[in-house]
Amino acid sequence: MPADPFAEIVDLLMLVPEGNEEAVDAVRRHDAQLTKPPGSLGRLEELVEWLARWQGKAKPTLQDPMVAIFAGNHGVTDQGVSAFPREVTAQMVANFTEGGAAISQICAQHEFNLRVFELALDIPTGDFTQGPAMDDKTAAATVAYGMEAIAGKPDCLAIGEMGIGNTTVAAAIYAALYGGTGADWVGRGTGVDDAGLRRKADAVDRGLARHKDVLGHPLAVLARLGGREIAAMLGALIAARHNNTPVIVDGFVATSAAAIAHAVNPAAIDHCIFAHTSAEHAHGKVLEHLGVRPYLDLGMRLGEGSGAALAMLLAKTALNLHLHMATFASAGVSGKD
Amino acid sequence: MPADPFAEIVDLLMLVPEGNEEAVDAVRRHDAQLTKPPGSLGRLEELVEWLARWQGKAKPTLQDPMVAIFAGNHGVTDQGVSAFPREVTAQMVANFTEGGAAISQICAQHEFNLRVFELALDIPTGDFTQGPAMDDKTAAATVAYGMEAIAGKPDCLAIGEMGIGNTTVAAAIYAALYGGTGADWVGRGTGVDDAGLRRKADAVDRGLARHKDVLGHPLAVLARLGGREIAAMLGALIAARHNNTPVIVDGFVATSAAAIAHAVNPAAIDHCIFAHTSAEHAHGKVLEHLGVRPYLDLGMRLGEGSGAALAMLLAKTALNLHLHMATFASAGVSGKD
Repeated sequence: MPADPFAEIVDLLMLVPEGNEEAVDAVRRHDAQLTKPPGSLGRLEELVEWLARWQGKAKPTLQDPMVAIFAGNHGVTDQGVSAFPREVTAQMVANFTEGGAAISQICAQHEFNLRVFELALDIPTGDFTQGPAMDDKTAAATVAYGMEAIAGKPDCLAIGEMGIGNTTVAAAIYAALYGGTGADWVGRGTGVDDAGLRRKADAVDRGLARHKDVLGHPLAVLARLGGREIAAMLGALIAARHNNTPVIVDGFVATSAAAIAHAVNPAAIDHCIFAHTSAEHAHGKVLEHLGVRPYLDLGMRLGEGSGAALAMLLAKTALNLHLHMATFASAGVSGKD
Repeated sequence: MPADPFAEIVDLLMLVPEGNEEAVDAVRRHDAQLTKPPGSLGRLEELVEWLARWQGKAKPTLQDPMVAIFAGNHGVTDQGVSAFPREVTAQMVANFTEGGAAISQICAQHEFNLRVFELALDIPTGDFTQGPAMDDKTAAATVAYGMEAIAGKPDCLAIGEMGIGNTTVAAAIYAALYGGTGADWVGRGTGVDDAGLRRKADAVDRGLARHKDVLGHPLAVLARLGGREIAAMLGALIAARHNNTPVIVDGFVATSAAAIAHAVNPAAIDHCIFAHTSAEHAHGKVLEHLGVRPYLDLGMRLGEGSGAALAMLLAKTALNLHLHMATFASAGVSGKD
């Protein structure tokens, strides 16, 4: 019997460290002294608690925040599922590093470290309507690559992606995990027309039919239907949990990596927040399956970590408030009657 | 017959300049060339168009953004409507300027100019359950003060407030403008208990009954039930419209200034965006009356312009993207098939 290539990944997903509630309590005690009514900063307060819980720090930091973008290419683009040609993936990777992309600008403006990881762009995954996207070993190795990618241990990690065709890939993953047909999960992506939308749904349906025998295992779903960037994001979020790094998950495609982890063990994504509700059809439904509530709803559907970076900006603002606001005592402000 | 003290204000609200649609068209033409799928930045794109429309600039700016906080005190606090004592208004004004308040920290972190305008804090308005909050002349003069306050013509203005008791005041204004009783419009404010909530509703009901004969005129509503900070915010948003300054309105209390303007002429607030949905009960309902959709929903209920400053941060981020992202041509990225 061959060794299970996913055994180590499953172990890492099952044996996740708990959050540090003492750090959260320390944050709450300090928050109660700040010159504002208790609770009045709403979910900004929640963001500081989240940083404390998963960094394990009573005074959380955002001194080394990383936005990591993983880029992959997809054989399923042969099925006419994207409005853009496949070469755009590599062109946009160049644009990220040259500073011209949206995420480059957000990171430059707000001083987030942008790291771009290309995943064999010249070798697209297999077209899942014809065969597996990846063999199990490639999928497992790409998860390991994602773990290694964040070995520098940022104090907060935002994960995003680039990959022409990957909203179809993510839709296939959701259909495999949550049921339904392609039409339930596909959307316009970068802007396909009605015929393109039908091609996306049809490709997902054919992929589900072809691989139906193995789709009970979330990591088989990743291998058969997924993409390298999704496997790498899964690896990054696993390593982050074991490194005390809170994770911000971007939009429709990035969430599919979290969905794979969640399907193995729901507690495995407790250190993740979900940045925003994408305009991509079905993202809201996925977030409901995960039982999470995003921070922003701005109709964005760009990917490349752009929504996650905005949520990181909220977290940075929230943390600055927590660390630097005056207390009632220091400012001589009267408390509640 | 005495001159109508509100005549000039009504004129300024009725004779509002239109937005500049040529500037918006220029923004849209440039946006279409940026290295992203059309529309994929969602409401961030809308923010840039809004700046262009109301600045009248094809290339909008955010070089001189101002967060203006107006502070006032309220006689209705005699009715036990706040969890905090009235002296906190002046204490928080000191905290704003000393840098310890939430809004001070947000502005320092993101380089917004914070201006704090105290409005006769030693002379609270009248208790509206006993008589008018302000006489008409005081109300009109305070609107004029608010107009003057932004005479420096920032290129974007966020308006916020501080004033112990003023969620009760805002609730009274909404009840007068939109009907219903106090219970429909009051909320927990800075954190009153159930008995405090009943006192708030009761105070609003008594105010409405006492002043019912004149509440058909929105500016009489302002004078009889309002506060100095609300009158000044009304002045600021009026002057902004006539100065090509787009306005970001903060939360439950700041919105009441916009509601007064809207009741005179709905088009008078077209240059305003509404930053966020406050956690304060009834704010969502007010925003529906105004027909506007806020950008953030983070459960905040602090006031002092904090939500408006976060929306300004979104606008700053959106504008930076618009001005500095690469174009398809400059980055050598292929367009849609």
